[in-house]
Amino acid sequence: MLQLYFSPMACSLASRIALMEVGVDARYHQVHLTTKTVATDDGDFRGISSKGAVPVLVLENGERLTESAAVLQYIADLKPERGLAPAPGNADRYRLQEWLSFVGTEIHKAFLFPTFWYEDDGSLAKPRARIGQTLSVPAAHLADREFLVGSSFTVADAHLAWALMLLRPAGVDIAQWPSLKAYLQRMQARPAVREAIATEMALRKAVAA
Amino acid sequence: MLQLYFSPMACSLASRIALMEVGVDARYHQVHLTTKTVATDDGDFRGISSKGAVPVLVLENGERLTESAAVLQYIADLKPERGLAPAPGNADRYRLQEWLSFVGTEIHKAFLFPTFWYEDDGSLAKPRARIGQTLSVPAAHLADREFLVGSSFTVADAHLAWALMLLRPAGVDIAQWPSLKAYLQRMQARPAVREAIATEMALRKAVAA
Ligand SMILES: N[C@@H](CCC(=O)N[C@@H](CS)C(=O)NCC(=O)O)C(=O)O
Ligand SMILES: N[C@@H](CCC(=O)N[C@@H](CS)C(=O)NCC(=O)O)C(=O)O
Repeated sequence: MLQLYFSPMACSLASRIALMEVGVDARYHQVHLTTKTVATDDGDFRGISSKGAVPVLVLENGERLTESAAVLQYIADLKPERGLAPAPGNADRYRLQEWLSFVGTEIHKAFLFPTFWYEDDGSLAKPRARIGQTLSVPAAHLADREFLVGSSFTVADAHLAWALMLLRPAGVDIAQWPSLKAYLQRMQARPAVREAIATEMALRKAVAA
Repeated sequence: MLQLYFSPMACSLASRIALMEVGVDARYHQVHLTTKTVATDDGDFRGISSKGAVPVLVLENGERLTESAAVLQYIADLKPERGLAPAPGNADRYRLQEWLSFVGTEIHKAFLFPTFWYEDDGSLAKPRARIGQTLSVPAAHLADREFLVGSSFTVADAHLAWALMLLRPAGVDIAQWPSLKAYLQRMQARPAVREAIATEMALRKAVAA
């Protein structure tokens, strides 16, 4: 069985959503990112991945795959019939990779990551000044489209939906971009997405309590 | 013919290296990133890509592809026989995607980008504190490997080699990681890499002059 190392509502949520959308069972291991320990057994998370970051997907052969863009494509390709990624060789596969990279670099690493990890040390003025221009790109793209790539849900949507959800706690109100707000509502109405979020929100509360 | 919008020594260098390694001709358009203009005709670069960032690859059908991770895989797949990317479906293809994501997110967007674009405004202490841990990941991986993925040059190497080259002007001496230093020297000794760098360094000098 596949195993996913995750932290509640962190970027690994996109991988959980992808697993639930394709209908593949997995064992989920919660990680404490600040202490780099695995919650279930207090084990050293850096022993699982020297990066110390989620997601980490443990494959059936025991190998570990990291980086959302790679993990999400791996999960999508487990069940090609579910259409979570255009087939390799299809022109849209590069569009999928383009959006996965955009979310991972420009929204996650350029904005969300410093916001949650660097906090209030003056390092946030420049990322904050850029995020509006960044978000205008998917906002324009989604003005007349239901999904990022093609005409159905892909792992790029799982990735973007996660990032958009985190923008509010990061201090950005996406209501400024009606197409993004409507898109996120559509994504959150999907049963698999709703269930993935409910599971992780419950775990988050348990941690806070 | 393919067309690549680039800026000398920016991350689009990896795409130029990939084009030269596969031996595909392209027309190259230089972009002034601060003014967002195309050098040849003073045209509006945001009209080419609303992101205002290089690389932008114009495909034979006129569509424009952005994001290094997508552009590099597109170029590699033009000539599968050159082996610049493992075939889709091959387990190593996900390793390629993992490294492309790692370079694009953790080295480029988390460190090089703020260093060159945000400059000296106090936003750099945290990225700087993290980069050593980040670089220890490829350093360990390359301790006993010649290339990032498999046993030959791939577009992931083009991406990492570019990022490592930029670390010095960003104030990080990679001699601290002998495996990275030796790797970069090997990559820079490749004829296509050498030629790509020579072309862009000459253009950079022309801009500075
Ligand atoms: N480039 C990675 C980023 C992974 C990442 O930054 N994960 C965060 C949670 S959203 C994390 O685990 N941070 C802990 C750390 O970096 O120390 C990806 O796209 O998967
Ligand atoms: N996520 C993009 C990043 C592209 C990027 O940041 N390019 C830089 C040059 S290395 C740029 O054009 N910056 C201008 C800007 O963002 O305003 C990719 O991986 O290709």
